Amino acid sequence: MKIRKLSALSKEELSAILDRGGGVSEKVKTGVAEILREVKKRGEVAVLEFTQKLDGVDLSALEVSAAELSAVDENSAEFGFLREAARNIEKFHANQLENIRSEKKVSPADGIEIWREWRPIQKVGIYAPGGLAIYPSSVLMQAIPAKIAGCEEIILATPAFAGTGSPNFAGAGSPNSAGEISTAVIAAAKISGVTKIIKCGGAQAIGALYYVYNVQKITGPGNPWVTEAKKQLSDKVAIDMPAGPSEILILADDTAVPKFVAADLLSQAEHAASSKSILATTSEKLAGEVEAEIEKQISELKRDVILKEAWRLGGEILIAKNLGEAIDFTNEYAPEHLEICVENPESILPKIVNAGSVFLGNFASEPAGDFATGANHVLPTAGFAKNFSPLSVESFGKKIQIQKISKKGLSAIRGVCEKFGEAEGLDAHARSVAIRFEDEE
Amino acid sequence: MKIRKLSALSKEELSAILDRGGGVSEKVKTGVAEILREVKKRGEVAVLEFTQKLDGVDLSALEVSAAELSAVDENSAEFGFLREAARNIEKFHANQLENIRSEKKVSPADGIEIWREWRPIQKVGIYAPGGLAIYPSSVLMQAIPAKIAGCEEIILATPAFAGTGSPNFAGAGSPNSAGEISTAVIAAAKISGVTKIIKCGGAQAIGALYYVYNVQKITGPGNPWVTEAKKQLSDKVAIDMPAGPSEILILADDTAVPKFVAADLLSQAEHAASSKSILATTSEKLAGEVEAEIEKQISELKRDVILKEAWRLGGEILIAKNLGEAIDFTNEYAPEHLEICVENPESILPKIVNAGSVFLGNFASEPAGDFATGANHVLPTAGFAKNFSPLSVESFGKKIQIQKISKKGLSAIRGVCEKFGEAEGLDAHARSVAIRFEDEE
Repeated sequence: MKIRKLSALSKEELSAILDRGGGVSEKVKTGVAEILREVKKRGEVAVLEFTQKLDGVDLSALEVSAAELSAVDENSAEFGFLREAARNIEKFHANQLENIRSEKKVSPADGIEIWREWRPIQKVGIYAPGGLAIYPSSVLMQAIPAKIAGCEEIILATPAFAGTGSPNFAGAGSPNSAGEISTAVIAAAKISGVTKIIKCGGAQAIGALYYVYNVQKITGPGNPWVTEAKKQLSDKVAIDMPAGPSEILILADDTAVPKFVAADLLSQAEHAASSKSILATTSEKLAGEVEAEIEKQISELKRDVILKEAWRLGGEILIAKNLGEAIDFTNEYAPEHLEICVENPESILPKIVNAGSVFLGNFASEPAGDFATGANHVLPTAGFAKNFSPLSVESFGKKIQIQKISKKGLSAIRGVCEKFGEAEGLDAHARSVAIRFEDEE
Repeated sequence: MKIRKLSALSKEELSAILDRGGGVSEKVKTGVAEILREVKKRGEVAVLEFTQKLDGVDLSALEVSAAELSAVDENSAEFGFLREAARNIEKFHANQLENIRSEKKVSPADGIEIWREWRPIQKVGIYAPGGLAIYPSSVLMQAIPAKIAGCEEIILATPAFAGTGSPNFAGAGSPNSAGEISTAVIAAAKISGVTKIIKCGGAQAIGALYYVYNVQKITGPGNPWVTEAKKQLSDKVAIDMPAGPSEILILADDTAVPKFVAADLLSQAEHAASSKSILATTSEKLAGEVEAEIEKQISELKRDVILKEAWRLGGEILIAKNLGEAIDFTNEYAPEHLEICVENPESILPKIVNAGSVFLGNFASEPAGDFATGANHVLPTAGFAKNFSPLSVESFGKKIQIQKISKKGLSAIRGVCEKFGEAEGLDAHARSVAIRFEDEE
């Protein structure tokens, strides 16, 4: 029985649900530091060695060759679903850039104009995980915003894994020990404007992106080794956000449909045994029906081993006294994915403060957002929805500030500048303003 | 003689100018790790101990008391300059929020609407350095965007230093060993909506913000200990960007005014001996005149000891063959502050890809942006203008994604979702979409 009352949870039980970041083991920390040290020192050679040693993949070259690229026809019927998803992703993210570019100028005084202009990051590295599944969708979700942002080089790192990581591994065109990567991933890369693909994963891939390919930002989800490598390099290269296991929280009342709710909880659970799936509901009836549905549906799905384990470890059905209590818990949890399956879901949206991607209504199935609506699926996990945004066009560029000041404009703020210079003990600051008026005095 | 030709620099000489990040010593890394460990374990007590041991400041309590706050009248004439600067900062940053909120909805298909909504980070920590000077301006530059963003709690950490760090220390109302902080800093905090002030600096302040006050993001410049502490906590709390010494690059042709250029180079040099001041110019005549002006002006300024050292270590006058060469160098350098003092400065702005804050024209003195135009002065340094934006309203919140999908909308993208589920070997994903149509089939 998974069902518990929210109000009956002890402080420790609540913490066990909320504190899902985990932290990184010393083994991972020192392992990552060693990998990065070697990649810094020996470059591509070290990346190939670690790929052989850790992933069992023997590569003759790191980069996907021109021949491998041209062997995949991204315009074939087989990849129509990638192109269709790409169109929606483009639409959503192009709208972001349009908004960024529409920011107005501000004039704090006559003769002063200040504004921001968009500039792309020139060279970015994106990571698409492998091992338990392949993720052409994650290629689209990163490369398309990067292309729209205007990045000149978009380098994709993705592992050519042996594909034996999971008892439920079932990726079509799964990567293999011969060093091939999925044709769907190559097609996604070609559709979305990736300029180079390197066949490696883990900490060595992050090291390669920075030390071998000199990218200026690295984005993308990954396992703890990938996340730790990004952190260790984060005083040298920009990163998107820390990453943890995938998670979904469904906020539901008795208008929710039990089998939809169960299916959506399982859709996130299938990523890995560490995934989290939580139902917070005001309806005891729904709680019971969802629990029964989950047992039933697991047995019908291919990745049943992962699903059972993920539901055992990270599944929760929590009964709230009322919607207010459920919303408070949701904001405290700050889920990566939040489905709101209540009567009039839009009415409670303003009360949702912390969430990555929100799905409104009984037909807003979370996987629709993973793949097809066009919204981004690279999202903050592990509670980081409190302080990070979903990946977006903004992730791939920066806004430079511009200040245009005439003599008249400077004279309007001269007094303030000189007072600050005095207050902060910085007379060269004050002088640089005053010197422009000296000849007149 | 500082003057060199850009094209004559060896690869090593160029690297010595460009690679100014420096990296952190093992001593700082382990020192910071120890401080954070202790603050995590023993909380405020450890923060007070380190403040005594490292800064020589003996505090009875970490927080500025209600009595200390009410002793400062932020509406007095004395602080008029702070209120005037605050008005401009508010104007510039309110415009950012207005722009964020004006992003349109996107509809990739009938029955699907996706959009982003702004949500503030609830609890943020801001850091204003001390030691060599006091920075009420940095309080305004962080707290005002945070307030506009909608943050509920804004906690300021700033050291109550003994004020003996520099031979040129000249901060009016400088903080002292009795544990008082500058009245100007308190006034700035009150004007800008800070909800609490804690009197500590260095790594222990960053530790206090996270472990004692549980903030969700930490922003603000600081010395290498502060920056390293932010990095070490960056898998637990969001941070703004890595920070290095302040820097200015002035791009000038023969229309620039030598004494203005010299004064502006020195305005950044006075921050610390590690500051960088670079002139890149197409005019040999200007180069010579600026060098002479610098010698002259240094002797007239209070912080002459810092200035001499900063100019000796980090001053450069570089002659470019033409404007194109100077612009390429500028983009490679990616300066925190960039002044463009050429004929028609706006015309070359589109070619500037990497810079934090750009100043156009001979009267756009950089310190005007430090204090008074309203643009932000917390900027990427050490080359991070390649991949980071200036601090802004965006730094203090996030955009959550919302997806509203009707049955009709889901049916429009159902095929794509199912194909992805198949391609990625994720049948629970495909099922969660399919199950919503099962009863009809």
